Amino acid sequence: MELMKSSIGAILKNIDIAKDYLDEEVVNSFLDTIIDSNNVFLIGAGRSGLAAKAFAMRLMHLGISVYVVGETISPAINKGDAIVAISGSGETSSIISAVKIAKERGSKVLSLTSYGESTLGQLSDTYILVKGRPKEGDSDESYIERQIHGNYKSLTPLGTLFELTSLIFLDGLISELMFRLGKTESDLKARHTVLE
Amino acid sequence: MELMKSSIGAILKNIDIAKDYLDEEVVNSFLDTIIDSNNVFLIGAGRSGLAAKAFAMRLMHLGISVYVVGETISPAINKGDAIVAISGSGETSSIISAVKIAKERGSKVLSLTSYGESTLGQLSDTYILVKGRPKEGDSDESYIERQIHGNYKSLTPLGTLFELTSLIFLDGLISELMFRLGKTESDLKARHTVLE
Amino acid sequence: MELMKSSIGAILKNIDIAKDYLDEEVVNSFLDTIIDSNNVFLIGAGRSGLAAKAFAMRLMHLGISVYVVGETISPAINKGDAIVAISGSGETSSIISAVKIAKERGSKVLSLTSYGESTLGQLSDTYILVKGRPKEGDSDESYIERQIHGNYKSLTPLGTLFELTSLIFLDGLISELMFRLGKTESDLKARHTVLE
Amino acid sequence: MELMKSSIGAILKNIDIAKDYLDEEVVNSFLDTIIDSNNVFLIGAGRSGLAAKAFAMRLMHLGISVYVVGETISPAINKGDAIVAISGSGETSSIISAVKIAKERGSKVLSLTSYGESTLGQLSDTYILVKGRPKEGDSDESYIERQIHGNYKSLTPLGTLFELTSLIFLDGLISELMFRLGKTESDLKARHTVLE
Repeated sequence: MELMKSSIGAILKNIDIAKDYLDEEVVNSFLDTIIDSNNVFLIGAGRSGLAAKAFAMRLMHLGISVYVVGETISPAINKGDAIVAISGSGETSSIISAVKIAKERGSKVLSLTSYGESTLGQLSDTYILVKGRPKEGDSDESYIERQIHGNYKSLTPLGTLFELTSLIFLDGLISELMFRLGKTESDLKARHTVLE
Repeated sequence: MELMKSSIGAILKNIDIAKDYLDEEVVNSFLDTIIDSNNVFLIGAGRSGLAAKAFAMRLMHLGISVYVVGETISPAINKGDAIVAISGSGETSSIISAVKIAKERGSKVLSLTSYGESTLGQLSDTYILVKGRPKEGDSDESYIERQIHGNYKSLTPLGTLFELTSLIFLDGLISELMFRLGKTESDLKARHTVLE
Repeated sequence: MELMKSSIGAILKNIDIAKDYLDEEVVNSFLDTIIDSNNVFLIGAGRSGLAAKAFAMRLMHLGISVYVVGETISPAINKGDAIVAISGSGETSSIISAVKIAKERGSKVLSLTSYGESTLGQLSDTYILVKGRPKEGDSDESYIERQIHGNYKSLTPLGTLFELTSLIFLDGLISELMFRLGKTESDLKARHTVLE
Repeated sequence: MELMKSSIGAILKNIDIAKDYLDEEVVNSFLDTIIDSNNVFLIGAGRSGLAAKAFAMRLMHLGISVYVVGETISPAINKGDAIVAISGSGETSSIISAVKIAKERGSKVLSLTSYGESTLGQLSDTYILVKGRPKEGDSDESYIERQIHGNYKSLTPLGTLFELTSLIFLDGLISELMFRLGKTESDLKARHTVLE
């Protein structure tokens, strides 16, 4: 169980460090856009797509009109809407392609990515920086990050840190939205599905 | 290719026969309920669930507020809503369970099933009878149906006939809804997703 | 109920006409590739994606190793695998993009499309031609097709005819595969999920 | 951004506390069962279902034969297989129903739940205890937990803590499995989908 505990520790540490990169202005702009949009569309691939869905579910609980790209009932995106894209690299091609279409149609683009200079970052009206595991040779890999990741890649393989950090940031955004929209837990519960 | 063509022929024949069991009053009541509901929820298991989604997508194109049970953003079902359940046997346990909850909460129940006397049929406010392959020894298996199915079970295995006949009936309902709601193909196209 | 019955009639007629375009050599090559592949991947967007899933489910019942692109457990595609793409226009960008990747990695490409000269058709090792509603002004729109579609676009809006015809063709292919693999309906039933 | 940071803090604290309840014998038995099973099936509802899928994806990357209940290609469950169920309350009816069927057919039952005495806990061969937010009036709510949750329900509404803690525990299990199976990150990458 040693590895499991070390892995959990590395994840918690990454999230704790990453949250210090959160920028108040960025977060506020992100929240404003969600609240001001007619419809909010979530998109992500693989496990980032699951984080997108987890966020979408809570937005629905909050009474926001929200859709997941690729699910059955997602309509056309239009001016006045926003798309929220989640991609660690910021280069996932299916996401870039959808975001470009959304932007051309006049929708706002929000994203979570580890790289602000990525294609996704550059296409975004607002992006939240989510530090995951630094790429091989990244100059901004701090000493403490190296200690976490060093020889222990298998503790948090592939995009694990990005995905989990994004998910928890998104849940943090939910608590801000509850406050702004004046929603209580009972309000959320009242919209929670009862059919599963 | 002989079997493929025979299989296609058996499917077309089944749909053609099954449509003669359609009852005008039932169809109208089904359509009225969909139009009059606040939200419409679709549910089905396996390939019947795919037919449910295909119908849900067109309802969305028509501008009806529709959800698929089990997808990310499906909210609580309430009085004033309707659930549309698709089950050949009318006994699929997860569907019966959801339909009971929906009914207790005051929602209308619509269904497509091969058996009106099934649990689902009995729970439904309105059910559309969809003749699939008769069960072994069914007394209402006509001569022509026996000819189709006789020794050729492998032409249309398991619920194939029910699923396909349901799907095509549902697409028939869409053309009725377009007319009633005064929608043209352009209206549908305008709501069609552009992000895939 | 008049429109519903006309719509069902138009659908059946389209499938009946379309099946005469089936080419024995093409169908055999399609089936051979499926049987000879290590893994088969299904892809489609919107309602064509639901047809893809309906086919995938039966391939699983037949014991073929099959995956749906975008579902949780789909692994990397490799040489020795095949991808089956379903697209009426043959130009859906997310599908073209995936098919190109699959091809570069050495996988075979099978497809169902209404246009053999489309990008998808041209990328395919084998494509099954599925006649849907002809495009405005298509020269190969026969008199009988015009009669079906003529002023009745709303009977079968958007890709309805392509999607339904594809689905039923795919179910026809299943009966061929059952025969070739020596599978009975009981074999399929034994692999059918029991958890829903 | 105060609430967001407090929310993230509460989540990290919960995971940190919860991991001290991890039992080595339980974890080993959980891992043994996964490794020894022919097929592993994942099930969960709502956001717990998303955690289930995130785990399933990594198991696939590890080369384990894994399925998600409700996805297209999930076959019948049999003796020699295992089902992994994720439910905070341990009483979600669709999950209990599936787990009972799995057990009757001779499959092993693994679970993550906050309540060992729940129906799910009692049906499980092995369950991992995942402390989420204590229920109103729970006697085992420690002082520190009250401090976290106290008046701040909206920081982590509904099942948030259970879902996130489960997900991170599952990612911890992945690092154990990598070690036991001798897999490197490159092995995982080689099986990662390339089609999205």
